[in-house]
Amino acid sequence: MSNEETIVALATPNGSGAIGVIRLSGPDAIVIANNVFKGKDLTRQASHTLHYGSIVDGDFVLDEVVASLFVAPRSYTRENVVEISCHGSNYIIESIIKLFIKNGARAAKPGEFTLRAFLNGQLDLSQAEAVADLIASNSRASQQVALQQLRGGFSNQLQQLRDQLVQFASLIELELDFAEEDVEFANRDQLKKLIYEIAKVISSLIQSFELGNAIKNGVNTVIAGRPNAGKSTLLNALLNEERAIVSHIPGTTRDTIEEILNVNGINFRLIDTAGIREATDAIEQIGVQRTMEKISQSAIMLYIFDAAQITPEELASDIVSLKREGVTMQIVANKADLLTTEQLAALPQDDTIVISAREKQHIDELKQKIYRTAIHDQLTGHETLVTNIRHLEALQKTEQALIRVLSGIDSVTSDFLSMDIKQALHYLGEITGAVTTDDLLENIFSKFCIGK
Amino acid sequence: MSNEETIVALATPNGSGAIGVIRLSGPDAIVIANNVFKGKDLTRQASHTLHYGSIVDGDFVLDEVVASLFVAPRSYTRENVVEISCHGSNYIIESIIKLFIKNGARAAKPGEFTLRAFLNGQLDLSQAEAVADLIASNSRASQQVALQQLRGGFSNQLQQLRDQLVQFASLIELELDFAEEDVEFANRDQLKKLIYEIAKVISSLIQSFELGNAIKNGVNTVIAGRPNAGKSTLLNALLNEERAIVSHIPGTTRDTIEEILNVNGINFRLIDTAGIREATDAIEQIGVQRTMEKISQSAIMLYIFDAAQITPEELASDIVSLKREGVTMQIVANKADLLTTEQLAALPQDDTIVISAREKQHIDELKQKIYRTAIHDQLTGHETLVTNIRHLEALQKTEQALIRVLSGIDSVTSDFLSMDIKQALHYLGEITGAVTTDDLLENIFSKFCIGK
Repeated sequence: MSNEETIVALATPNGSGAIGVIRLSGPDAIVIANNVFKGKDLTRQASHTLHYGSIVDGDFVLDEVVASLFVAPRSYTRENVVEISCHGSNYIIESIIKLFIKNGARAAKPGEFTLRAFLNGQLDLSQAEAVADLIASNSRASQQVALQQLRGGFSNQLQQLRDQLVQFASLIELELDFAEEDVEFANRDQLKKLIYEIAKVISSLIQSFELGNAIKNGVNTVIAGRPNAGKSTLLNALLNEERAIVSHIPGTTRDTIEEILNVNGINFRLIDTAGIREATDAIEQIGVQRTMEKISQSAIMLYIFDAAQITPEELASDIVSLKREGVTMQIVANKADLLTTEQLAALPQDDTIVISAREKQHIDELKQKIYRTAIHDQLTGHETLVTNIRHLEALQKTEQALIRVLSGIDSVTSDFLSMDIKQALHYLGEITGAVTTDDLLENIFSKFCIGK
Repeated sequence: MSNEETIVALATPNGSGAIGVIRLSGPDAIVIANNVFKGKDLTRQASHTLHYGSIVDGDFVLDEVVASLFVAPRSYTRENVVEISCHGSNYIIESIIKLFIKNGARAAKPGEFTLRAFLNGQLDLSQAEAVADLIASNSRASQQVALQQLRGGFSNQLQQLRDQLVQFASLIELELDFAEEDVEFANRDQLKKLIYEIAKVISSLIQSFELGNAIKNGVNTVIAGRPNAGKSTLLNALLNEERAIVSHIPGTTRDTIEEILNVNGINFRLIDTAGIREATDAIEQIGVQRTMEKISQSAIMLYIFDAAQITPEELASDIVSLKREGVTMQIVANKADLLTTEQLAALPQDDTIVISAREKQHIDELKQKIYRTAIHDQLTGHETLVTNIRHLEALQKTEQALIRVLSGIDSVTSDFLSMDIKQALHYLGEITGAVTTDDLLENIFSKFCIGK
């Protein structure tokens, strides 16, 4: 990958708007922009300055624009960068981009600006990935996790671990040089202690993925119950008081509309189901089967029942038949407003939440309960969360390598030990980009949008 | 309308992109931005500088951004302006806008930035309107006309005319002060000469509207002919060699797909029709009627016939029955590749273009002919074109007032003359915004997008 070329792309979304911003980056960015800019000589201006002028193609004026100048290395890519703010017409934007290409730039590939930021040492790989997460963030929690990762919270922690391991690795390498003398530069007890320490951190990072993933992608939350238990009323009650930025998203795999409920910054994807009842025919059986599939794909199930109607036997039977491994069931007794004091007292106690969906009673209590379930009481705002499946896999491989180190530490020779430690270092390095391959980079950056 | 308030809006299109730009304008723009900006003190920086930092809400970091600083009066609105380049997530953009509003800004109305640019004397009214036209421009010609209007070409010309008229108006006002003495400060012959001069310019501006409108909105061009004359083949041949930026646009009123053909920077909206034949039943009659409607709505009709098949009588009958007032008919003889020399010689000469749609012969000749028809051989690249219906109406009213001046110049008293001249001045002033009402401004700027 050559950084000799100057690349150009629209950095703002397609479509009509007041302005569009076209970004140029590379050694010739300023010269190319200056070739077609009528105004001050951009090659003689200071970094971080703004210049009003026209973009011209010979005698032909394309637009009146503002040029933002970032002189290397003080830019996002650490290269010369010019951003042109033009009028937001697709025709004008395309014309200006074509003009830059005619003058020696080339169209940027998806994520190529951020790739250059990574290759030039502005960001490590996990930070670069966080840029895409930040753009995709749609809730306070997902934005915070991405921003923390962008700011290096995650990489710093891994880098420290890696540094400590590197130290031991080099001591063990040293032993290999003196192999015939049978010396031990690396104290095995201290190494063991360090490995345990590292493994503990890695393990907690691995565990954080469940929550990190929930924050990034939202928590699938299915609402199940018998017909007329109040499922739709509950859905409305949950959403009514909530002004989610995204309130409807078309279901991608399920072919249904899901509703987004945002609680304390975390998005819950609420999935309504058909009422469960004893299936009396084939068609109903299909409906029940679909509901069960939706439950299996969810992290949380809100099982709602009509507390004024259901018998204890029916309730017990529902609970047994709906329980699924890995799906947290929250029992919700509905229609509290219709119950006598005796009926209320007879409800299952423990974890049941008693609400009235119609009267909107105890809805907020239910929301907070769902929130605590989702975060496992973990989220305090300062922890490092893993949200990226690539990172998870690298961490899991690191953990396996560490276990191999531990199991061999007292029995195997320095050269095997060294190999296992190097493997752990390799996988850790894949996360921050200390270790990369072209395929890995291609795979990561091709998913970015163009212009980033 | 108060400029005391600081307004805020997203200036880039909605949707996902690498970056979004949020614009603040008003006396407190820099202070409000600085309140939530962690980085350099923005209130102490020079105009036209760029600053990297974070947007923070208390301890809570919203995003890492670049702030562009424009200190009044060196900005688009001539007020203090700050533009925040943030990551292009809707969640982040909405959060930052909300934060600015919490800190004292208010959400901008459509076009409010440009309205302020007008109120603060940065642009006159026709220039402000050109900003919206520029954003909507989708061809080289429409972009050029809008840009010329934005750069004041149109307003300058009108302003000069208006200045000359103002001079005469004040001389005639002077006569009113000396009414009892029956003096003539304003030489009637000179006035008449000036009015003729002005009326000539106004009249040519009015005439330019047809072309200006065609450039702005595209030229409706219908393709008509008998079944199998080659209409669709011609449509494809015209489009094949053309890479229009917009190649398909859904018809808004016609419920059909129109194709855009761009010739020398002008967009032609090509409209295909059902083949014309003698209607034998009611349904066919409806089809013919629709074709005739489409012809009436067009500026140009391409009448195409199969030169190898049609009889001179059929041809004459088609031409007579399709001709419509105000629609320029271009006769196109198709299937030239199948004709004998004798058949070719027998074709009607004058304005007929002989092509082969299938073999793509003489297609470019046809295109250039359509182009010349559309521009009436007028467009040289330097003339002022009226593209705005509001301007057209004001020019027409100006013209009527000028005619009243002329018809009364020798017969009516100075006070009536003065009134007619003032009317002409009023309508000219409405174009440049020298004369405005709140309704007029509301009407113009409410059609802008938010953020401009």
